[in-house]
Amino acid sequence: MNKPHEPNSWEARAMANVMAGFTDFPTLHERGPMILTHGKGVRLYDTAGRDYLDANSGLWNVVCGWDHEGLIEAMVAQTRRFPAYHAFFGRMADTSVELSEKLIEVSPFATGRVFFTNSGSEANDTMVKMLWMMNRAEGKPERRKIITRINSYHGVTAVSASMTGKPYNEHFGLPLPGFLHADCPHYWRFGEEGESEAEFTARMARNLEELIEREGPETIAGFFAEPVMGAGGVIPPSKGYFEAIQPVLKRHGIPFISDEVICGFGRTGAVWGAETYGIEPDAIIASKALTCGFMPLGAVILGDAFAERMQAAAEKIEEFPHGFTSSGHPVACAVGLKAIEIILEEGLLANVRMISPYFMKRLNALADHPLGGEARGIGLMGALEVVAEKATKTPFDGALSVSERIANACLDQGLICRPLGQAVVLCPPFIMDETLLDEMFDKLETALDKVAEGLKA
Amino acid sequence: MNKPHEPNSWEARAMANVMAGFTDFPTLHERGPMILTHGKGVRLYDTAGRDYLDANSGLWNVVCGWDHEGLIEAMVAQTRRFPAYHAFFGRMADTSVELSEKLIEVSPFATGRVFFTNSGSEANDTMVKMLWMMNRAEGKPERRKIITRINSYHGVTAVSASMTGKPYNEHFGLPLPGFLHADCPHYWRFGEEGESEAEFTARMARNLEELIEREGPETIAGFFAEPVMGAGGVIPPSKGYFEAIQPVLKRHGIPFISDEVICGFGRTGAVWGAETYGIEPDAIIASKALTCGFMPLGAVILGDAFAERMQAAAEKIEEFPHGFTSSGHPVACAVGLKAIEIILEEGLLANVRMISPYFMKRLNALADHPLGGEARGIGLMGALEVVAEKATKTPFDGALSVSERIANACLDQGLICRPLGQAVVLCPPFIMDETLLDEMFDKLETALDKVAEGLKA
Repeated sequence: MNKPHEPNSWEARAMANVMAGFTDFPTLHERGPMILTHGKGVRLYDTAGRDYLDANSGLWNVVCGWDHEGLIEAMVAQTRRFPAYHAFFGRMADTSVELSEKLIEVSPFATGRVFFTNSGSEANDTMVKMLWMMNRAEGKPERRKIITRINSYHGVTAVSASMTGKPYNEHFGLPLPGFLHADCPHYWRFGEEGESEAEFTARMARNLEELIEREGPETIAGFFAEPVMGAGGVIPPSKGYFEAIQPVLKRHGIPFISDEVICGFGRTGAVWGAETYGIEPDAIIASKALTCGFMPLGAVILGDAFAERMQAAAEKIEEFPHGFTSSGHPVACAVGLKAIEIILEEGLLANVRMISPYFMKRLNALADHPLGGEARGIGLMGALEVVAEKATKTPFDGALSVSERIANACLDQGLICRPLGQAVVLCPPFIMDETLLDEMFDKLETALDKVAEGLKA
Repeated sequence: MNKPHEPNSWEARAMANVMAGFTDFPTLHERGPMILTHGKGVRLYDTAGRDYLDANSGLWNVVCGWDHEGLIEAMVAQTRRFPAYHAFFGRMADTSVELSEKLIEVSPFATGRVFFTNSGSEANDTMVKMLWMMNRAEGKPERRKIITRINSYHGVTAVSASMTGKPYNEHFGLPLPGFLHADCPHYWRFGEEGESEAEFTARMARNLEELIEREGPETIAGFFAEPVMGAGGVIPPSKGYFEAIQPVLKRHGIPFISDEVICGFGRTGAVWGAETYGIEPDAIIASKALTCGFMPLGAVILGDAFAERMQAAAEKIEEFPHGFTSSGHPVACAVGLKAIEIILEEGLLANVRMISPYFMKRLNALADHPLGGEARGIGLMGALEVVAEKATKTPFDGALSVSERIANACLDQGLICRPLGQAVVLCPPFIMDETLLDEMFDKLETALDKVAEGLKA
């Protein structure tokens, strides 16, 4: 049933003029769009004056809350000082130089080079182009295939969508040829009958090696992975996974690119997800918390070896023929500098580490709910996978839209969380405390109870 | 010879940490990077305190100057009010609704839908995905090929770079299969011996039709064109070009997408380049002047028919599975609203129309310079193509880097302009007046004289 809207209301104007992305249309028609006006701390306010605790941090990115004074003032100051520039022709804003240097400083790399984009999608797309360019310059033009994993999320440009291991991309006729998807290391879901977690991990590594050998290692340009899969439904790797696959990649000379768009800058309880999982990346893809979402910004951070190879490839043809109009935008870079300071030096990362045990304790307790299948997470990212039958892990019939029902029941409680497949995802801002975590989990539990009741009826 | 830099200087820090895009490396090594701190009106200032008249408007985008108070205050106000949000899950910021509505209002379309991205690259990439999705939903999955033109520029994601008709993309192994490039309608350069402009235009249309028939019209998803090619070197179409090719496309059922990233919002002297050239587009791609460059923002503006088809395709699978984290960013949208007001209602577009005749007069006079080949332009965009020999239009030996020499000689005069192939491009801000135009052209003429002298020596 379509919700009626007053003519000229915010809702009617949105329904008439907006092409809505990543929106469940049955829900949109039933509930109407939600138009937001402002936020305070961890709460958002809509045009009807309702407020919501945002357990989404926007889209994983607004980790400092919606009105962080220090970040707002940094953005305002740079807007007044130098509100626009690019990074073409060897010209760039001073803040762009500063943020490049800062990113190398906080990266795992001793030296390196930074290339700015406007999003994680553009950054992954750029990294693929860099791999293709380096390999061609070095006389290996056939080294083009990209390996990612089922359920991984790397963006929505045609190439970054091809990397994303989600079935919805078939509706665009994607992935493009040459984009391969290895296994998803989700032991709870994909572990076989009687298979231990160690055996599962060994199988993941073995399958990856078989994929590489089948395709030919000399045709593979790189392996991209999120340390914890984010939009796949918060899937931490099985125990020992990265320890097991890194030697496989090394053995075949395949670079490891750590997609830290979600994990980067504190989400897992360390600056990088790579740090949390002992990954030694050749490059890092960053975005989201890099500016706390206040400015669109992405970055490709090339480690020592890649930086040298890319520079050599570019010098050879006298140019790196690539760049976005807003690459290195002075305001985005100033906001990035301040966001890093806030997270790393002003206590946000420290707070993640402090409250994570309580977050995980309440998250893990949800597994005991009648709907609860697996509760999983790390740092300040978590998911509850719901099941129709606990013992067999049987999912609900997709037509029941159970995770959407839960998310909508949460909205009715004044809580924003995200349905993803048959999971509900929680990735609250880094400024949460125990009281707010209690409010968040209490509201989610109320919603779970209501949905469980509705399913019985 | 590499320019030495003081340790820890801005220049040394940039050279060490930045992967420079679209930068001529020989020039970078010779002159060092230029680090900018702020701007006033049409002028930019670097860390050494030098100032430059920016005849580039940043990258075609900062059309209101570098310190436009109204735009800065709009950006500051929205930053304080609501500094971040997305447009997923049927939720969006109020300013995102307002800008969607405003874009339909100022578009050539009676009704339509808007999808926001962070850049023109993302917007073109998104439009391609939309075409693929619509065609699949309508049972025509084979309708995937994209036609653009040689010398066109549509961006740098792997797909938008595949659309870009520039030879440098071969260094990435692009274009991807299925991206076709029709002729460049540049009569001065590509007209044949004895061929009239009308004959040339007829040949362009004929060749396009032959390309379509050779490939099979049923395999072609869309035709994308900039009304005036921008980064191809400011190439207005040959006389009658769009009148000639539109019936060809219509006859074969091929949609026309007008890439207005550069032309949109006044550059050609009208709101849209499509208006200037009598193009009837199915969709418009916008960016750059949409925010005067103060915020990264791109938009796909779907006309009536596309909006209905896209919505139907999305309803069918219950979702449009696409979206960027910062799609519909509240600050970007607020800045977009103000920029449109400034350009359309506060006199910037009117000023373009007023000063364009003087701009064109001084531009055209450059054709008489000893180096001058063709002077071409419209509105407030122009190019001077230089030649080694006027009569035969013989270009200079590429190794002489003549356009780079001219641009560098301009920098020495305190003028920023852009070398593109063997042309020098001028696309000054919309706030120029005759005095500033005189300064700009006088400085360029001085630079041309110096380079001409150097070439003789």
